Amino acid sequence: MSSTMGRLFRVTTWGESHGKGLGCTIDGCPPGVRLDLERIQAQLTRRRPGQSKLVTPRQEPDRLEILSGVFEGRTTGTPIQVVIWNKDADSSKYERWKDTYRPSHADYTYDAKYGLRDWRGGGRASARETAARVAAGAIAEQLLEERYGVEIVGWVEQVAHLSAEVDRDAITRDLVDAHPTRCPDLAVAEAMAELIQETRVARDSLGGVVGCVARGVPAGWGEPVFDKAEALLAWAMMSLPASKGVEVGSGFSGALMRGSEHNDLFTTDDDGRIVTTTNYSGGIQGGITNGMPITMRVAFKPVATLARAQATVTASSDPAEILMKGRHDPCVLPRAVPLVETMAALVLIDLALLQEARRP
Amino acid sequence: MSSTMGRLFRVTTWGESHGKGLGCTIDGCPPGVRLDLERIQAQLTRRRPGQSKLVTPRQEPDRLEILSGVFEGRTTGTPIQVVIWNKDADSSKYERWKDTYRPSHADYTYDAKYGLRDWRGGGRASARETAARVAAGAIAEQLLEERYGVEIVGWVEQVAHLSAEVDRDAITRDLVDAHPTRCPDLAVAEAMAELIQETRVARDSLGGVVGCVARGVPAGWGEPVFDKAEALLAWAMMSLPASKGVEVGSGFSGALMRGSEHNDLFTTDDDGRIVTTTNYSGGIQGGITNGMPITMRVAFKPVATLARAQATVTASSDPAEILMKGRHDPCVLPRAVPLVETMAALVLIDLALLQEARRP
Amino acid sequence: MSSTMGRLFRVTTWGESHGKGLGCTIDGCPPGVRLDLERIQAQLTRRRPGQSKLVTPRQEPDRLEILSGVFEGRTTGTPIQVVIWNKDADSSKYERWKDTYRPSHADYTYDAKYGLRDWRGGGRASARETAARVAAGAIAEQLLEERYGVEIVGWVEQVAHLSAEVDRDAITRDLVDAHPTRCPDLAVAEAMAELIQETRVARDSLGGVVGCVARGVPAGWGEPVFDKAEALLAWAMMSLPASKGVEVGSGFSGALMRGSEHNDLFTTDDDGRIVTTTNYSGGIQGGITNGMPITMRVAFKPVATLARAQATVTASSDPAEILMKGRHDPCVLPRAVPLVETMAALVLIDLALLQEARRP
Amino acid sequence: MSSTMGRLFRVTTWGESHGKGLGCTIDGCPPGVRLDLERIQAQLTRRRPGQSKLVTPRQEPDRLEILSGVFEGRTTGTPIQVVIWNKDADSSKYERWKDTYRPSHADYTYDAKYGLRDWRGGGRASARETAARVAAGAIAEQLLEERYGVEIVGWVEQVAHLSAEVDRDAITRDLVDAHPTRCPDLAVAEAMAELIQETRVARDSLGGVVGCVARGVPAGWGEPVFDKAEALLAWAMMSLPASKGVEVGSGFSGALMRGSEHNDLFTTDDDGRIVTTTNYSGGIQGGITNGMPITMRVAFKPVATLARAQATVTASSDPAEILMKGRHDPCVLPRAVPLVETMAALVLIDLALLQEARRP
Repeated sequence: MSSTMGRLFRVTTWGESHGKGLGCTIDGCPPGVRLDLERIQAQLTRRRPGQSKLVTPRQEPDRLEILSGVFEGRTTGTPIQVVIWNKDADSSKYERWKDTYRPSHADYTYDAKYGLRDWRGGGRASARETAARVAAGAIAEQLLEERYGVEIVGWVEQVAHLSAEVDRDAITRDLVDAHPTRCPDLAVAEAMAELIQETRVARDSLGGVVGCVARGVPAGWGEPVFDKAEALLAWAMMSLPASKGVEVGSGFSGALMRGSEHNDLFTTDDDGRIVTTTNYSGGIQGGITNGMPITMRVAFKPVATLARAQATVTASSDPAEILMKGRHDPCVLPRAVPLVETMAALVLIDLALLQEARRP
Repeated sequence: MSSTMGRLFRVTTWGESHGKGLGCTIDGCPPGVRLDLERIQAQLTRRRPGQSKLVTPRQEPDRLEILSGVFEGRTTGTPIQVVIWNKDADSSKYERWKDTYRPSHADYTYDAKYGLRDWRGGGRASARETAARVAAGAIAEQLLEERYGVEIVGWVEQVAHLSAEVDRDAITRDLVDAHPTRCPDLAVAEAMAELIQETRVARDSLGGVVGCVARGVPAGWGEPVFDKAEALLAWAMMSLPASKGVEVGSGFSGALMRGSEHNDLFTTDDDGRIVTTTNYSGGIQGGITNGMPITMRVAFKPVATLARAQATVTASSDPAEILMKGRHDPCVLPRAVPLVETMAALVLIDLALLQEARRP
Repeated sequence: MSSTMGRLFRVTTWGESHGKGLGCTIDGCPPGVRLDLERIQAQLTRRRPGQSKLVTPRQEPDRLEILSGVFEGRTTGTPIQVVIWNKDADSSKYERWKDTYRPSHADYTYDAKYGLRDWRGGGRASARETAARVAAGAIAEQLLEERYGVEIVGWVEQVAHLSAEVDRDAITRDLVDAHPTRCPDLAVAEAMAELIQETRVARDSLGGVVGCVARGVPAGWGEPVFDKAEALLAWAMMSLPASKGVEVGSGFSGALMRGSEHNDLFTTDDDGRIVTTTNYSGGIQGGITNGMPITMRVAFKPVATLARAQATVTASSDPAEILMKGRHDPCVLPRAVPLVETMAALVLIDLALLQEARRP
Repeated sequence: MSSTMGRLFRVTTWGESHGKGLGCTIDGCPPGVRLDLERIQAQLTRRRPGQSKLVTPRQEPDRLEILSGVFEGRTTGTPIQVVIWNKDADSSKYERWKDTYRPSHADYTYDAKYGLRDWRGGGRASARETAARVAAGAIAEQLLEERYGVEIVGWVEQVAHLSAEVDRDAITRDLVDAHPTRCPDLAVAEAMAELIQETRVARDSLGGVVGCVARGVPAGWGEPVFDKAEALLAWAMMSLPASKGVEVGSGFSGALMRGSEHNDLFTTDDDGRIVTTTNYSGGIQGGITNGMPITMRVAFKPVATLARAQATVTASSDPAEILMKGRHDPCVLPRAVPLVETMAALVLIDLALLQEARRP
């Protein structure tokens, strides 16, 4: 435990990187939803390695199979089992290092916690686990869009010191996917691409920041005091591998502002709907959405796997040096974009259903 | 819902700012713990207003009363009910504005969600709700310290643009409490105090950052993949009023680093224990503690309540101006320190008990 | 743990028999409900001792106080804290026996589990704990009636070998309360009353069966496969002190029937609504309500507290004899009626809200 | 929802009778357990149809496959995914009746709840869903036996009016499996077998009662007040298809006894261990195990599927007659035995782990 998230739209993921497969059980998806499998597959494809020369050339087809919960194309309200089979995983390069702890990976902590671990390809701690989440998130996104008109868009906002300017009201996935970096600020995107290639050659890696907006969320979602919308979003984002920080609305920059500047004044829009003149709150006040766009930023550390020798210790606490061969992503930010969207969608659909329960 | 946090050490808070009182139920506290009530009271006192000229002069005595779950001074393993009575709350100044939404407060969103709200003193959305958490957190801290040797210390690291340098290995609560700002870097602390006084005069408010470290946490706590230690910490911190961002370890600054720099290399200390040479991971790898200090930072927005007129709308969407009289904190950062410690303690005790369950 | 039940309408009880008080937190009650406090008090009064000469003459006023979650007479959607203060509890008679295990009480098992216990009046294991549930259940009943037209009625169906005939379609609480035994079959009720008096004189005690019906429940409530309506009802009933068995629909007598006899054939009623010609299913099929009355029976063992000497052991495993003075109920069945109604209501309101969440 | 049970040993089942397969995710199984797959398979085989001429001759091989959570033969502490593939399911006979509600099945209630259903073979409501539970229960049983010395044995105690005498202290699975009825009282077993054959010829069906004992459970398991051991057992048993009643200890017969007779007096055994001279409590007092054998009885209604015409209605509320061809079990009691054992094991392992968490 705990591989389950959500109270009403409950997602349980399972599986290891080099086992037979991985997947998730979605319990609580409303019945009667006509699933758009191509859409789910598309989001899975955005996550997988090998999409461009910027990311690792490993090819993981990531074809999903649905084993239950869908009948004649529609959800039945019973658990949906999604599986993504692992194919041709070669664990040999991991075997040599199975007793040597990779720096800033979870090898040591899994051993410390469980007393043993599946060392093949990182096992359960592999980022490949997130593929299962993406499948569930794509279903959540479909529901959010069809029933509530919610649209979630993420993008690469920063790679190392390179920062992009993004218009959160106008950004779309098409604009994001227009460049392989998934940075929609094309001048910055080009510089990022160049930096990524240089870093690959230098056998090093990069971190960065993913931005995300959820537009169209109605006022009233979020469950104070512990399941506030921003709290659940922060939790969801920080459950992603390699994430080190999260912001909602003004985030850390809000700490620099005065209250007279930061307060979002209420007014009405042309339709008479209550809105705010600014949105430093990031669409959430007191843990509850206020109808303005929800804005988030998630920091990712640089990739821990490096194509260079590093000092470490073995499971018997002996000093060692590790050098794992293979081609690795120097920067996972482009692939992190659908992950951030996924986690936002999974949080929001659960809050939506919880709010439905309140209205008899 | 949901006013409950934790899976084994479960805390449910209840109560509004100007109702009869507020409190919490702690279900799952191990039996046989000899409660140190003075210690609990001390942490409550650190949270309450009126401690110094820097914070609001409102006097809330915040005396706790335990109604159940403790017998002859020891916990019985059954639910502990803690109540903090509200005294002499004067709601009259709120009555005038009950239909006018205070900017960047939760008035509008509570109405949008629930259709009505207790407008007296902010009701359930008041930061006073956190007093109940502090009581529970102080019990958790006692358990963490006695059974696991864990020590949690928070401090004010930043107010507006003023940033302190703090030695996370050496900082203690005594050092923190030596200055009313709770900033242990005394030169910066004085500047902060001055800025807070200026801001009060200017009828404005300030935000900032609280830093926190948990030392002595053993390797092995945290429940991948969704209840990773950093995910739960992020969630807990972002459930605090006014928090806008959270970092674990390197946080957003980690996004600027190269992997070769960020990776925490393993070695052994003088006792042969596995440690890392740096701690950019912040004591957590793959969602599981690695025995190094857990480091966190939490961003708080400037206080929303201002002693000046602000534009807003009423519940019937009419434009309005609001000016709420009274003396308010221009900066809650000093009082946020025990809150951050509290949330860290509540997350960690739950992870500790979950890990106990794994070892038969 | 666990003193919490429910997923959306969540009730956490706390408190011991002779502590300061006991109560419950209700988290998730829909907002805007105008609470009928007299109704809640009335159900509490039906549970308390001293209502008639048939039950214990102890007087527990059981006046409830609401500390939070209700504003201007209506629920706010935030946690409702209900407290029932303990008054003048005399624990002296318990002190003498605090190290002697009462037969068929929870003294030994609480010690075995927790290592210590509040021995005053049975502490947490006292049936007095159920008073808190009754308060929550009365609120649930009000919601079920107003929003869904559900009516729940329980009665004493059996005391020892004396069994009543009760028309489940026509029974009302007024008919039930017409006799102090709460058995609506008046001839049998008189025999029960006589037997109870005889048993009191004989310093012995009696068990029995409470019957219950929930009429007006719409089709569609219940959450397969684990939270089937009958499963949750069975769990709820068996969480009551002294309950030893539970039946839904035909129960154990269904085991004696042939399928051709037991199957409830579908037809339509005068309004064209689908109904069944018989109701051996007890209103639930496949874990989901079918619109027919839900019928239940709960068996209670004879009261464990006897006004006679009994052999036992002490906490140090020494043989002992126990004889606890005081006046005790020889038969709690009349007071168990509101408890069974309470548990049914708490299960059904939660299933109602869960089904609301499914309908966007 | 909800297809998940357990708080620490959490089992989520998924899958429909005639879909691609069914299975379960076990999240929270302690790491390092060397799984005995043959043992799991053996229990699955005890559940499946076609074991003897007494039960349906349908052949479901029910071979399990483990997709995750086990590495080099041992559990890793991460989610275990078990799948049982469906083979050669012929849904044609169901297609004809897809709009006609089978009496006392879940066709109508699933439609009422979800608005649609997978009608093939009963879909999610099929008893085949329990195969997934059995796999999880067999793992739980292995843990209970190895770590705690707990042994669980179920048997057929009653078929229609035929009741067996069973020695709960001596009964073993070998004795139970010695007769195809799984009734260890061989004279009664023969009469049951004859009655089952007669009933098959008569195109009718039978109900009955399964008895079960858990021996070796230590004192201290169970979580008052809502997750009392007997409450969770009742819930678990009543979540089984066709169950209508459950008893722990004396059950409904306890309602007939006097307190002086029913009270289990404490004494010590030869090892100085506290025991009771009788066990009407069924091994549980105040919701917590007392070290005596846990005894249960579960009533099952007669099988709803009959090889004869029955009156019913269609989904459009029109009167209809249904006659579903095929060979069906006239009595599922022998196959219900492993199900009752399974549910007991799943409840007990969770309570065991919860109690571990209490002991730091």
